[in-house]
Amino acid sequence: MKAITRIEQSLALALASGEAPGCPPKLAGAIRHAVFPGGARIRPQLCLAVAQACGQDDPALSEAAAVAIELLHCASLVHDDLPCFDDAQTRRGRASVHWAYGESLAVLAGDALIVLAFQTLAKAAGQSPARLPALLNIVASGVGMPFGIVAGQAWESESRVSLVDYQRAKTGALFVASTCAGALSAGADPDAWRDLGECLGEAYQVADDIRDVMGQADLLGKPVGQDAQHARPNAIANLGLGGAIAHFESLIQAAVDAVPEGASAQEMRALVRQESERLVPRAACNAYRNAGAQAPAAAG
Amino acid sequence: MKAITRIEQSLALALASGEAPGCPPKLAGAIRHAVFPGGARIRPQLCLAVAQACGQDDPALSEAAAVAIELLHCASLVHDDLPCFDDAQTRRGRASVHWAYGESLAVLAGDALIVLAFQTLAKAAGQSPARLPALLNIVASGVGMPFGIVAGQAWESESRVSLVDYQRAKTGALFVASTCAGALSAGADPDAWRDLGECLGEAYQVADDIRDVMGQADLLGKPVGQDAQHARPNAIANLGLGGAIAHFESLIQAAVDAVPEGASAQEMRALVRQESERLVPRAACNAYRNAGAQAPAAAG
Repeated sequence: MKAITRIEQSLALALASGEAPGCPPKLAGAIRHAVFPGGARIRPQLCLAVAQACGQDDPALSEAAAVAIELLHCASLVHDDLPCFDDAQTRRGRASVHWAYGESLAVLAGDALIVLAFQTLAKAAGQSPARLPALLNIVASGVGMPFGIVAGQAWESESRVSLVDYQRAKTGALFVASTCAGALSAGADPDAWRDLGECLGEAYQVADDIRDVMGQADLLGKPVGQDAQHARPNAIANLGLGGAIAHFESLIQAAVDAVPEGASAQEMRALVRQESERLVPRAACNAYRNAGAQAPAAAG
Repeated sequence: MKAITRIEQSLALALASGEAPGCPPKLAGAIRHAVFPGGARIRPQLCLAVAQACGQDDPALSEAAAVAIELLHCASLVHDDLPCFDDAQTRRGRASVHWAYGESLAVLAGDALIVLAFQTLAKAAGQSPARLPALLNIVASGVGMPFGIVAGQAWESESRVSLVDYQRAKTGALFVASTCAGALSAGADPDAWRDLGECLGEAYQVADDIRDVMGQADLLGKPVGQDAQHARPNAIANLGLGGAIAHFESLIQAAVDAVPEGASAQEMRALVRQESERLVPRAACNAYRNAGAQAPAAAG
């Protein structure tokens, strides 16, 4: 079965477990709206790819790790879209959760998704309970304090922040959790997979900054120009567009180089290259360079 | 060491784990504001009391269960106080988190507390990893979908709701999690302790409704009259004040009767009686009855 099919099916099962008769129906609807239809599911795909590379002797636990990470990612999107943050009306090309269901249910949907993520992990640990403590801890580290995505979002409330600390927490942490959790779910040492997660996570954030400037809202599925509007730290403000593109390309190369040697190394490297092309098409980078364009005015 | 001392020390350790150098300082402050100084810590006390009654062979795990439940309770208070819910300016007699730190950091503090709760459980499972899946699952059930406190809060967004379903989810679920997690953390069967949690949880919610009508803001540490103001389902609207007091007393008796026989049964029953007196002093109930007072106008 293809990884994306396993992910969608496992997400559907996880959500169904919270939708027993007698549950509040609007909250169930808001949760479903937050998770389906999804984006590229890159984090859970990364998690499953690493698990596969590590032998994946407990597929149910690896799927649960992938699902937990995607549910936590969805929760962060729902809360980040709230009026007190981005106040985004659209997400993945349609209404954001608070725009469709109201702010109260959006707060609660995010909370419920966080809980469901950890509960999904726990429920899948029957065959390998000894793996659960470290696996849960690494997933939680990608989300919580002091260096997870919640901390990353909180840096936007601080007057002084380094771009590296901010990006590492806001995006990188959950990518590191994805690779490390994939390894742990298969009983392997996570440390060999940490660099790959870090490079990809930073590349993803830089790509997001690039697309926030170059992109069109209908392609992104969310408003563009948000970084400048919210005066958020971003790579364009620091490096200019040309510098950000060069940085992105060097991070993708570093990610490719970080893939540990092994039977699945070629497949993993191909996945990284494919994701790179999806994030920032090489043709667009070349067109920008060939036009000798100047970087747009810095945003911050 | 007294239970309350163990709880406060364990809470302090859990928070310190998220406050490494390099964390966003305002979020760390908001989280601390949400947890200290605390309320009565009744849920973690209940959890530890049940663990004690079950032999408590892994005190660190029992403390982690108690801490996880209190952190989840604190998270729910922070989010319930937000402008899109109660918009409460005070909590535990001082500024609510969003009033002190702003709405963004209050949302993030709640999220971080939920993550920290599960991470605390995972970190303490080294001695008894086989207990973690069921323990984590029962704690998550008290919070998430379909019947936990997040679901309870979501019932306030529905036009039709039964008072019993609402109260069972909004308050009862985390009391059930407290008693059952106490048993599980000690390797005991949780089912014998479920009824005690259910009766106490319902009693606690009815007491909250009673105090919302009878109480004074400076004693409660939060505004009174909130149920009527927000048209929330509540026991006073259904039963009148006299009926609610009688219902509270019957629930406390049911809780006393639900304590399983055993070496610690007398201590546990004394704890229930003591908590009852703290929630709704018997003197106040008797004064109400002796005055032959009529119930105030129903709120809903």
